[in-house]
Amino acid sequence: MPETAPSGTEAASVSAPADGLIAIVPAGGAGTRLWPLSRRARPKFLLDLLGSGRTLLQGTWDRLVPLTGADGLLVVTGTAHAGAVAEQLPALAAANLLAEPSPRDSMAAIGLAAALVEHRHGPRVVGSFAADHVVENPEAFRSTVRTAVAAARAGYVTTIGIAATHPSTAFGYIRRGAALAQVDGAYAVDAFVEKPDEETAREYLATGAYSWNAGMFVARTDVLLGHLARHQPMLAAGVREIAAAWDTDARGEVLERVWPGLTRIAIDHAIAEPVAAEGGVAVVPGDFAWDDLGDWDALASLLPADDDGVRSLVADPATTPVLTLGSPGATVVIDDGVAELADATAASARRGALAVIGLPGVVVVRTRDATLVLDRAHAQSVKDVVGELVARDRSDLV
Amino acid sequence: MPETAPSGTEAASVSAPADGLIAIVPAGGAGTRLWPLSRRARPKFLLDLLGSGRTLLQGTWDRLVPLTGADGLLVVTGTAHAGAVAEQLPALAAANLLAEPSPRDSMAAIGLAAALVEHRHGPRVVGSFAADHVVENPEAFRSTVRTAVAAARAGYVTTIGIAATHPSTAFGYIRRGAALAQVDGAYAVDAFVEKPDEETAREYLATGAYSWNAGMFVARTDVLLGHLARHQPMLAAGVREIAAAWDTDARGEVLERVWPGLTRIAIDHAIAEPVAAEGGVAVVPGDFAWDDLGDWDALASLLPADDDGVRSLVADPATTPVLTLGSPGATVVIDDGVAELADATAASARRGALAVIGLPGVVVVRTRDATLVLDRAHAQSVKDVVGELVARDRSDLV
Repeated sequence: MPETAPSGTEAASVSAPADGLIAIVPAGGAGTRLWPLSRRARPKFLLDLLGSGRTLLQGTWDRLVPLTGADGLLVVTGTAHAGAVAEQLPALAAANLLAEPSPRDSMAAIGLAAALVEHRHGPRVVGSFAADHVVENPEAFRSTVRTAVAAARAGYVTTIGIAATHPSTAFGYIRRGAALAQVDGAYAVDAFVEKPDEETAREYLATGAYSWNAGMFVARTDVLLGHLARHQPMLAAGVREIAAAWDTDARGEVLERVWPGLTRIAIDHAIAEPVAAEGGVAVVPGDFAWDDLGDWDALASLLPADDDGVRSLVADPATTPVLTLGSPGATVVIDDGVAELADATAASARRGALAVIGLPGVVVVRTRDATLVLDRAHAQSVKDVVGELVARDRSDLV
Repeated sequence: MPETAPSGTEAASVSAPADGLIAIVPAGGAGTRLWPLSRRARPKFLLDLLGSGRTLLQGTWDRLVPLTGADGLLVVTGTAHAGAVAEQLPALAAANLLAEPSPRDSMAAIGLAAALVEHRHGPRVVGSFAADHVVENPEAFRSTVRTAVAAARAGYVTTIGIAATHPSTAFGYIRRGAALAQVDGAYAVDAFVEKPDEETAREYLATGAYSWNAGMFVARTDVLLGHLARHQPMLAAGVREIAAAWDTDARGEVLERVWPGLTRIAIDHAIAEPVAAEGGVAVVPGDFAWDDLGDWDALASLLPADDDGVRSLVADPATTPVLTLGSPGATVVIDDGVAELADATAASARRGALAVIGLPGVVVVRTRDATLVLDRAHAQSVKDVVGELVARDRSDLV
């Protein structure tokens, strides 16, 4: 695999290795719908939400490094979380940890990383993969990404289409068109469509032509930045200027001057949608279970159920009694933050009992300083609670 | 009012003052159905369950003292709670606070107190009133008690019949018979009946002849102890032996020797039921709202609802945000025990937020070391949780 990218007309095959792929992992998002476990100071990607022993960020690393090598992965995160990211990913090179001074949405984050890759290495294939998703079959995921890399080499902005398992109203959809002649398993994207209502979602699934949009994009840096320069010229110029200064003493000055003025826009709106309309986006349908753990309903579905049908994630199960009666399908999540406490008495009080009685669909989440009691069907309303806490001047609790 | 009791044939009138009545307040019961707020170390009667500013025990005192004077009230409680009772009732004479070495059910507690009253003062009218009930109209309550005192003077073991507001299956019922000729407003008791099923309870209410049995009994000590001597001779002899030694140096020795052997039996079974069958029990129907706060469902009904239909009892509302969405009829009770904490950081964490979303019938109770999430219809199951905690060797949490 050459260090310079192949031209858009070069033939690419599905069996090609993903060597040369550089993964960009935007690690951001407040994750307010997973409050009170997910917090501003400890967002979703830093949490081990499935009790696997690895955080979502670490799981993302584990999933991608076989494709990219440890040196082929960049993380873009907020200044406040850079330390935690470095701690969770000890093999991440310091140069590959990009700290954003302020959130500027996904296009600025991915655009900066892509521009930095190109500045350092010349044109390469980059793929952006969120730090807070879960994938159940990583081998199938990697196989799909390899196909997407091939389509990217052929000049397409290539997205990964997630096989829809139900008519979700929580995700956008990708409608695929004709198969690409150059790459087996890849299709032209007809359109990206916004989150539908349930009836529309059912119609989508019935056609067989729709996948969920997980926001994974694979593209050559020259292709990506070329599209960006056409559709968001100021943004493209901005990230290129910052990238050129990144590995120099001027980084701080340029960042401070340019970053705050960058347009806040998601990559979906900045590139995927307009370029799809131009025929420049491909999709590779994936055959692996995926979830964005978007809310407590989604997370509850992924936790294993015990004999009573109760799902739980308890930080300190040996000393935190959880009792459930008549509540099959209930979900219990406890992280009382006992480990942070020096005072034995306080620690003992924190390891308190939790009892749930007669509430089959309930989700109960208890942390050091907040308790959430939620009917699963109302999972989307959790963000309103976070908003209300801010409105009450209790940002310390969000 | 003479210090010796009138004979059973003396006429008594409703308007007679209750001077001379001595109130016996058994303050016991684990209150496990109000876990985790009610605890072994801090049972129900020591709690201000309605946020009135007075605990149930203090409310009982406030209700009775106008009838008896401060010197005319005895409290019988467990050794473990004697200190807390004395603290909550500073005007209670030390001699009137009786500490039981171990629980021996209500007959031993009331029998001992009655025997002690008789030993100290000669025959008197005593009334037993639980320490953990609530009464909404204390004037009406006292008027009913005055009538009961009159019936007691006439020689009856007299109970107070609570006007049933609904076909409760949580209470026993009293069936009244003919009006007593001697006392206006008092009736012979035909029978005490056990907690019925709902259909039977509806039938009871339809007849108009039934009241709830709140376990309040008023009787002359000679009458009460006479019945006890006939139906439970060992128990009567035991409490009289202890009472005779109570105000002497021998109290400890006699208590230690006699108390553990006393029959464990409720006054209802020991006296009320057999004596009713003999025609010796009267009932005075009361016209006041009463509740025994028997479980979270009962307590929730008595807490005031806010504009969103949410009922709450929060120890530290100014710094404990409670947010509810889509949960009219929900009940929130929080006592994080912040006041007990010296450590400001721990105190701050204890004042945590609570959010309830989409759960109209839920009861959420949070204390320092336990959280209960309950559907109101399952309120009776809370005691099973307490049992399970004991079975798991976590008596520290009950």
